[in-house]
Amino acid sequence: MSRQLNGIAAGGGIAIAPAYLLGVPDLSVKQQHTDNVNHEVARLHDSFAITANELREICQRAHAQLNKQAAVVVDMQLQLVLADDFQQTIEHQIVANKYTAGYAVKKETDRWLAENASSEQGLHQRRIAMQDLFKRLMSHILGIELPDPSRLKHQAIIVAHSLTPTDIARFDRRYVVGIVSDLGGSTSHFSIMTKEKAIPGVVGTKTATREILDGTSLIVDGIHGRVLLSPTPAEIDEYEKKAGDYAREMESLGVLKHQRTVSADGRHFEIGANLFMPDEIESAKNSGAEGIGLMRSEALFMGRDTLPSEEEQFLAYKKIVADMTPERVIIRTLDIGGDKPIAAIQTPTEDNPFLGMRSLRFSLAHPEIMRPQMRALLRASVYGRLAVMFPMVSTLDEFLAARKVLEEERQKLQAKGIGCANQIEVGMMVEVPAAVEMADQLAQYADFFSIGSNDLTQYMFAADRGNSQVAHLYQTLHPAVLRAIKHTVDAAHAEGKWVGICGEMANNSLATPLLLGMGIDEFSMNSTSILPIRSLIGELHVRQLQPLVHQAMNARNAKEVRQMIIGRVPVLKNFNF
Amino acid sequence: MSRQLNGIAAGGGIAIAPAYLLGVPDLSVKQQHTDNVNHEVARLHDSFAITANELREICQRAHAQLNKQAAVVVDMQLQLVLADDFQQTIEHQIVANKYTAGYAVKKETDRWLAENASSEQGLHQRRIAMQDLFKRLMSHILGIELPDPSRLKHQAIIVAHSLTPTDIARFDRRYVVGIVSDLGGSTSHFSIMTKEKAIPGVVGTKTATREILDGTSLIVDGIHGRVLLSPTPAEIDEYEKKAGDYAREMESLGVLKHQRTVSADGRHFEIGANLFMPDEIESAKNSGAEGIGLMRSEALFMGRDTLPSEEEQFLAYKKIVADMTPERVIIRTLDIGGDKPIAAIQTPTEDNPFLGMRSLRFSLAHPEIMRPQMRALLRASVYGRLAVMFPMVSTLDEFLAARKVLEEERQKLQAKGIGCANQIEVGMMVEVPAAVEMADQLAQYADFFSIGSNDLTQYMFAADRGNSQVAHLYQTLHPAVLRAIKHTVDAAHAEGKWVGICGEMANNSLATPLLLGMGIDEFSMNSTSILPIRSLIGELHVRQLQPLVHQAMNARNAKEVRQMIIGRVPVLKNFNF
Repeated sequence: MSRQLNGIAAGGGIAIAPAYLLGVPDLSVKQQHTDNVNHEVARLHDSFAITANELREICQRAHAQLNKQAAVVVDMQLQLVLADDFQQTIEHQIVANKYTAGYAVKKETDRWLAENASSEQGLHQRRIAMQDLFKRLMSHILGIELPDPSRLKHQAIIVAHSLTPTDIARFDRRYVVGIVSDLGGSTSHFSIMTKEKAIPGVVGTKTATREILDGTSLIVDGIHGRVLLSPTPAEIDEYEKKAGDYAREMESLGVLKHQRTVSADGRHFEIGANLFMPDEIESAKNSGAEGIGLMRSEALFMGRDTLPSEEEQFLAYKKIVADMTPERVIIRTLDIGGDKPIAAIQTPTEDNPFLGMRSLRFSLAHPEIMRPQMRALLRASVYGRLAVMFPMVSTLDEFLAARKVLEEERQKLQAKGIGCANQIEVGMMVEVPAAVEMADQLAQYADFFSIGSNDLTQYMFAADRGNSQVAHLYQTLHPAVLRAIKHTVDAAHAEGKWVGICGEMANNSLATPLLLGMGIDEFSMNSTSILPIRSLIGELHVRQLQPLVHQAMNARNAKEVRQMIIGRVPVLKNFNF
Repeated sequence: MSRQLNGIAAGGGIAIAPAYLLGVPDLSVKQQHTDNVNHEVARLHDSFAITANELREICQRAHAQLNKQAAVVVDMQLQLVLADDFQQTIEHQIVANKYTAGYAVKKETDRWLAENASSEQGLHQRRIAMQDLFKRLMSHILGIELPDPSRLKHQAIIVAHSLTPTDIARFDRRYVVGIVSDLGGSTSHFSIMTKEKAIPGVVGTKTATREILDGTSLIVDGIHGRVLLSPTPAEIDEYEKKAGDYAREMESLGVLKHQRTVSADGRHFEIGANLFMPDEIESAKNSGAEGIGLMRSEALFMGRDTLPSEEEQFLAYKKIVADMTPERVIIRTLDIGGDKPIAAIQTPTEDNPFLGMRSLRFSLAHPEIMRPQMRALLRASVYGRLAVMFPMVSTLDEFLAARKVLEEERQKLQAKGIGCANQIEVGMMVEVPAAVEMADQLAQYADFFSIGSNDLTQYMFAADRGNSQVAHLYQTLHPAVLRAIKHTVDAAHAEGKWVGICGEMANNSLATPLLLGMGIDEFSMNSTSILPIRSLIGELHVRQLQPLVHQAMNARNAKEVRQMIIGRVPVLKNFNF
């Protein structure tokens, strides 16, 4: 048996390919002074010219792929490279002090970084750009090649210490067939993105970049969270078979694509798709979604350095709403902050961004951003069945304030003769513990609830979902979370309102029987999970699940809950728990 | 009427004195090159020599005042100043490049800071020390005096942008009679410290340092959160009268010092004192405390760069326990992390430290630190009535794991013939929402609960208690928090266990009637609040408070709760709400 690394399954099935190591090469400067100043100046000019060309090319590609977030960082670098004074200052240092080109570049970037050391948001991005630019310039001066997965011409598995959503968005999906990282918890944004794009992935391996050499043959098992290093031919055979099984299972689920979601005892549930980017709507429709359960409107705000206008937003919302008619599209208002910064918006640095000025709190504090979004949503509402959802509601006062802004904008539009749909459902996410506690009151004013299980779990246990050190406390299936969900569902049903769930728990097949038993009405999840969950629901008898729910709510931890489920009800074997 | 600034009341009564502005003077370097190298080298030597003397003096004073946390930072600076190579490198720069002393110091500290830019914990303190040292050196080179409240020789009110606990600990309490700051929420550690030391304070004024000039005459009203600039003679008269009333009220409460805490209808409640430093025990005893409800053991770990040994801890715990006999002393195990770093312990930087590896999580992950503390507590238990309390319990598994470590150490000690008390109460803080949800299970295993209202409120609303941007969401009197407390009390009483409260809510006089009505058995608070709260409890009829509790739990926000209380039950007028 070959060496294995264990990590957290990020889904997507199985991949077999050589490793492409995203490491950082040694760019330290060996020599500080020179006798040949002209030679060093020439090296400097060359490195600037090559870097500028390289950046232009990446920039074009990023713009062509509509990958605006990546383009912003590259644009910044290009501006720095093309700014006259930057290159001139370095050249002056070479001439005046007989520095080598490498040493002069290092000295000047260090100086720049020290001078721009504020942690204010906008500057932070410029610092990242400068650090990246430094690597590019040095690689040309020193003649060392930097790893660049965008140049891949064969299939490979990316092995990295950590990956940002921007990194992942930059990958060419024809060649990047799998991902392995040292860091990342099971619901950090990294793994969420990978799941939605369905790249087989294993995160949180801790040591992958230290143990895997570039080019090592790898098997990534995104179902069980396993990485095999230099697998034996027998292992390759075995995993090719598993990959085939997985593909066939996905294939066989295809028959469910045009069916509704119905339990074995005839109860109907709704499964919608989560959309991150508006252009994912085709894959959502192809995956058998009964509507869009969560359209993340912040996608329109990311990857650019200006705010989208009301008109731009209107056109984007209209397209989705019209495309999905007659199905419902739930658009969540701007949910930024925490770990989702937006270039066009300067936000102050916070000690604990997950407990800070994020999401609806931000919108309410910025009417100049909130009101145009409300108008764009209202204008789009006439093109189909749009519902508005406010994220991160902590108090009734907040929800009422948000609803009031929406109502005021509706009246202003109507006064101008601009039509809006008569009935727009206005709901809210339940993801803050105080909202669970006050669900009875909130249900009197909200048209629906959608449970955000990721944030809810994080706040219930006071455990950052991106922090692997406290990952043992982040237990989505813990009875404390189950009780909170049950309490929320009961409070909503008492007021005749429906309850959805749109966190990671929605596509955790072990949670499915509990969620059905607790009375959840709607699920929203990444497109690739819809058919497997629909198939599972088809095997479950909702009325028989009550004793299981009761027992799980009185278990002592998530492990006990898991054991209660396995063996008592059907589970999906190709899905991570 | 004179100009006023509003902020958050940090308690402590009223102060009238001139402002002492803790601003940062302009230390920028005007001239970079010199023709007189020898002169600049001499200036450099002078500035190092004067700075070293200055630091030695501060260091001695800090050690003499047992102010170890301040001493650590000063020690670091002294080491940097005395290190040969630092001064030599700068001197070399002056000679080689004809730099002025000021420019050379700036260049070298910038270089050092850039090279030591990691945000790792230990380095962070060294960076602060270097930045502080830079200011001292430059002030001597440029002949500009730095503000230094430790040199105050007259009474003054410190006006600062923000203050750390170290800053406050450094103040000479004979001369610093009040504090005003731009930043700081009502329960940030800053204001907590001020309250325990009872300096009149107003925090979170946002603009104080911009609007108040050094020397301006000020009135600080720490009861209502108000600062008056250049008050009129009439205002000074008025506030001198108020300050007198406040002092007399404090005085008149003295008769309650040796009485127990009993409600108007004869129910006994216990009020213990919160101890931060072991040397506060005298003031706790003088304040009429019925025991120590919260001894923060991390105080023994702070302000030093080595860990306290088992023996050192044993002696400290023993002294407190023996001093307080026959009253109970509840010692909380190490509660670090979040915003409480400890020099001797390297902790990784976290994106959201309040949701990270802190408190009991840290202890369980570090048996080499936890086990000696358990042994020290067990050994101290024979000298009086000691109870052990675990902070930040998130799951039953955690509490059982912690209790097991304590039990194992007890058995090891007994095997060696070292005695421990037969009955040690072992309880836990309830401050994580999941613990509230599972209170029924936890109450089966814990001997008592103590509600940490600060963290509980913070986590219930997902609102950092130190972040003024979300201060509007941090509502301790919100019905969501009240419901959580009521649920916790009911669950504990059902198992025959008692429940205390040791957060800021315990000494919020508006909360007192609710807490009595909900069945809280014990209160622990800063010493200065004990007698006022005892006097208030003496006026309340517990049996008549049920309707108020019920109504408050169904209010819509904290403001409604406040209105329900005021006018219905007695309140304390000299305490901030």
